[in-house]
Amino acid sequence: MSMRTNYCGLTTEALMGQTVSLCGWVHRRRDHGGIIFIDLRDREGLVQVVCDPDRPGVFAVAESIRNEYCIRVTGTVRERPEGTINPNLTSGKVEVFCEALEILNASVTPPFMLDDEHLSETTRLTHRVLDLRRAPMQHNLRLRYKVTMEVRKFLDENGFIDIETPMLTRSTPEGARDYLVPSRVNAGEFYALPQSPQLFKQLLMVSGFDRYYQITKCFRDEDLRADRQPEFTQIDCETSFMNEQEIRDLFENMLRVVFKNAIDTELPSPFPVMPHREVMARYGSDKPDLRVRLELTELTDVMKNVEFKVFSSAANMANGRVVALLVPGGAKEGSGMPRSEIDAYTQFVAIYGAKGLAYIRVNDKEKGSSGLQSPIVKNLSDEALTQILERTGAQNGDLIFFGADKARVVNDAMGALRVKIGHSEFGQKNGLLEEGWKPLWVVDFPMFEHDEEANRWAAVHHPFTSPKDGHEDYLETDPGRCLAKAYDMVLNGWELGGGSVRIHKQDIQTKVFRALKIDDEEAREKFSFLLDALQYGAPPHGGLAFGLDRIVTLMTGSESIRDVIAFPKTQRAQDLLTQAPSPVNERQLQELHIRLRKTEQPKTA
Amino acid sequence: MSMRTNYCGLTTEALMGQTVSLCGWVHRRRDHGGIIFIDLRDREGLVQVVCDPDRPGVFAVAESIRNEYCIRVTGTVRERPEGTINPNLTSGKVEVFCEALEILNASVTPPFMLDDEHLSETTRLTHRVLDLRRAPMQHNLRLRYKVTMEVRKFLDENGFIDIETPMLTRSTPEGARDYLVPSRVNAGEFYALPQSPQLFKQLLMVSGFDRYYQITKCFRDEDLRADRQPEFTQIDCETSFMNEQEIRDLFENMLRVVFKNAIDTELPSPFPVMPHREVMARYGSDKPDLRVRLELTELTDVMKNVEFKVFSSAANMANGRVVALLVPGGAKEGSGMPRSEIDAYTQFVAIYGAKGLAYIRVNDKEKGSSGLQSPIVKNLSDEALTQILERTGAQNGDLIFFGADKARVVNDAMGALRVKIGHSEFGQKNGLLEEGWKPLWVVDFPMFEHDEEANRWAAVHHPFTSPKDGHEDYLETDPGRCLAKAYDMVLNGWELGGGSVRIHKQDIQTKVFRALKIDDEEAREKFSFLLDALQYGAPPHGGLAFGLDRIVTLMTGSESIRDVIAFPKTQRAQDLLTQAPSPVNERQLQELHIRLRKTEQPKTA
Repeated sequence: MSMRTNYCGLTTEALMGQTVSLCGWVHRRRDHGGIIFIDLRDREGLVQVVCDPDRPGVFAVAESIRNEYCIRVTGTVRERPEGTINPNLTSGKVEVFCEALEILNASVTPPFMLDDEHLSETTRLTHRVLDLRRAPMQHNLRLRYKVTMEVRKFLDENGFIDIETPMLTRSTPEGARDYLVPSRVNAGEFYALPQSPQLFKQLLMVSGFDRYYQITKCFRDEDLRADRQPEFTQIDCETSFMNEQEIRDLFENMLRVVFKNAIDTELPSPFPVMPHREVMARYGSDKPDLRVRLELTELTDVMKNVEFKVFSSAANMANGRVVALLVPGGAKEGSGMPRSEIDAYTQFVAIYGAKGLAYIRVNDKEKGSSGLQSPIVKNLSDEALTQILERTGAQNGDLIFFGADKARVVNDAMGALRVKIGHSEFGQKNGLLEEGWKPLWVVDFPMFEHDEEANRWAAVHHPFTSPKDGHEDYLETDPGRCLAKAYDMVLNGWELGGGSVRIHKQDIQTKVFRALKIDDEEAREKFSFLLDALQYGAPPHGGLAFGLDRIVTLMTGSESIRDVIAFPKTQRAQDLLTQAPSPVNERQLQELHIRLRKTEQPKTA
Repeated sequence: MSMRTNYCGLTTEALMGQTVSLCGWVHRRRDHGGIIFIDLRDREGLVQVVCDPDRPGVFAVAESIRNEYCIRVTGTVRERPEGTINPNLTSGKVEVFCEALEILNASVTPPFMLDDEHLSETTRLTHRVLDLRRAPMQHNLRLRYKVTMEVRKFLDENGFIDIETPMLTRSTPEGARDYLVPSRVNAGEFYALPQSPQLFKQLLMVSGFDRYYQITKCFRDEDLRADRQPEFTQIDCETSFMNEQEIRDLFENMLRVVFKNAIDTELPSPFPVMPHREVMARYGSDKPDLRVRLELTELTDVMKNVEFKVFSSAANMANGRVVALLVPGGAKEGSGMPRSEIDAYTQFVAIYGAKGLAYIRVNDKEKGSSGLQSPIVKNLSDEALTQILERTGAQNGDLIFFGADKARVVNDAMGALRVKIGHSEFGQKNGLLEEGWKPLWVVDFPMFEHDEEANRWAAVHHPFTSPKDGHEDYLETDPGRCLAKAYDMVLNGWELGGGSVRIHKQDIQTKVFRALKIDDEEAREKFSFLLDALQYGAPPHGGLAFGLDRIVTLMTGSESIRDVIAFPKTQRAQDLLTQAPSPVNERQLQELHIRLRKTEQPKTA
């Protein structure tokens, strides 16, 4: 006989009068009028179980049970008495009259109530098993599963094949830091865990598999932020014989289908497309949150000769930039931003390296500079002030912030400030934040960015990205001008995925390595398998990878990707549940031909 | 415009008269009567492309192309001339008259012909990218994908949810050797790559997810055999509130559905079920190949007092065993086994530790011992000889092999010999090998086996396996007698999967740890997260894991699991393609707080 006939949460009036066996956890026990009511919970939800003193055997067991006991109930489904129907539950019209009650397992008192919404993250991660019983976590992980199944279905229908690539692979010290795995059999040598299956998926295209995908773990040993984990999950895709536009159309469509089927949301169609140069100019970020109705205004050209040194020196730097950020209504009497908020933003931009946050209150622009309230006004020329007002389109009652520094600092600081203000109480009250979903394709990325410290060019995406047609010659003559067939998909300020058309010709690949100052010998040593593969009729190919964790985090409105991962690591890369990482014993180290450095002896062995 | 409108291999008469654009590889180029014929290949198969000298532009390009060039052809689909139809191809009734021909990428001459069926494995793994273009490898990996999709579909329909568990987890030195990953942030500490998600899936059951699955990589740093890889893929499943029988029924059904849908094969229904004790007695192996029509015959009891010391001493050992293996027709004049084959088997059983291979030819059993041809006959009692003939059911012309040693050696050696003979030319000629699929559930495994070296009990499966109902008391009184709710699924001599009902009560888990001489402190240190979880109303749960690589290997009839893995490792755990593992640089080691042992300096840095 089966332990269970039905799920608690799916016990409805369709089962009226039937005998059911339910298994689950005691969510709540109430004694009311001499009767014991149990809210019994399983993954599908709650059902009310009624234990009557007329059944003394059952009643005695019911009296002994406590929250989170795991029990089995056999009973009859019946209508709830009038006035006790719970419209919030699928099972809300019925209750189960308990005829047999078995304790499958007792529980000690849990360290917190499952309904508690104010648990610290440390508490939650330490008691992750109980945390995962909570309704939001059950919902998040089931939604995550639904997303992966919708992705698989879409890709299957479009001819993509899931092919597994190795986890124990070769270390390539470029890019992020590798997690290494010492080899026992090959003394002194190491595997690396993959940062992505990039090269393997390209090899699969050369092998003629045509369309590949994989939902797979990737690893980067970097310092962690809110949206980073040492191991994270990519939806990794690659196709042959499609151009950039076709690839983008296909995967844009995938996202639309997945959002529709997983959370019944229509994403806009088509996604807007914007060149990288434009998003940086307008938003200071390559993943702009387009819900925020604020933009940067370029002022570098008009600040070259102003007295105000902060602006003029930035404007005259090789990589300098001066911008304005107009905040409509920010200086309005009564409803504008208080001084304290502006001060807070000054501290906020400092995080991104900005040395200050100049601003102008536009009190009465008809009055010229005397209608502008700001200590910097007197050091700006009339021409500059005119341009500021004209270009920003400022109206009376508006507030204008300024950023002036190296372009990178300005973009980081003012791009972040733009988002911060948009999401602030002020922004929401003043219509600076739209609702809904705002996707964007960012395209035409530069191939290279100049690494000032090392004084050489570095790949913006990775060295296997194809230059745009007609840009191949720049590889040798002017790498900074060379644009790539690379694209990122952005949604509400999150980079959901990115990819590129790859280089499929060996001569172009060699030129890119040279532009990156990877000489032929080094290229052969590290990437001989790729270079070899390219010479056997490698097909035109390209693809992209989505961050599954981020997609689900966005869908669930979670604050951290840790809320959509069953067993995440903390910001110190620890698993508080299993206490990993941990010391290992000397025999294990010996077998792997390594020892600990003197300063770091194991805490125990 | 799209690079491609159709797949080569799917170009059929349905497209007659239409203009198509095809992309693929030059499989073969033939010049015939002044016309160039190209067999153009993509993942769906071949199509014939005709390049006519009347189109001089196209023809000139066609003349320059070589095997494995990647090309794009635009042309008209037309009927093949009568007499040139190829019934072996989906596209065999048509050809494409080439109107435009573009070389997408040239190819140097490949190191081997893709049709070559006699490639060494080293050649294949070194040039894996080309090896994967071969039809059998294309077929294997696409079938592998189909299997995973069928598994996902079945499990989805049965309410299972794919939940990802960590790859960077905690080392538990029991069982196989872990792959370790040094932590940079937590100096002197290590993660381990999972040998299986065993404990995490149990925790997910405690968390109430009810039904979990994952198709995931697992890692064991063991010395490799033909069917082992350092990283391998498990179909890992767990469910709550189902008993052993229900779990087995569900997954037996899954296998049947997957075999039906993936390779259109009907597996027998139901699978036979046999206790572990019985399979060991009859087949000497816990994964018997039931296609082989041979069985072991127990003789231990009748050999205790015979003169022949090899038999009597084995029969009197604590863990000794004496068995016969009857080979019908093995001694038949003319068609029996030649002496040379018997000698080869003697060497074969030596691999398993057998010190010899005694045998008797049954020439004329009516004559008693004088009708039995063997040097050992004179040292066996008449009673023993009678029992041998009676129990084996030997007929004239049969051959009887004997195994006598510790039971483990006898089982290993005679179990392997049974399979060897069944699959030999002799076996196949004499009807000792059935065709088709022979599944089997092996159940009632012992909980523990005695580790003689360490003089203690070790877990046969793992220490989280539940004892059978009523066997809990043996945990303290007689561990060797305690049977487990464990089960293995065997198919044609391969262990496809295995699992168990798990312990869900903390007191039983503690007793099992004690039986294994894991004291409470050690148990708490290593498994506190599990013991903690069990006390919060852990549900009854169980599950199993299938080896995906093995399932697909069996389905494809491949010789090695390496033939169903895109990028496998060699027996020295190396990836010949990317040359992993490899030396890493000193900075990397420093960051990880480790150094190489003196004897093993890196080859290069």
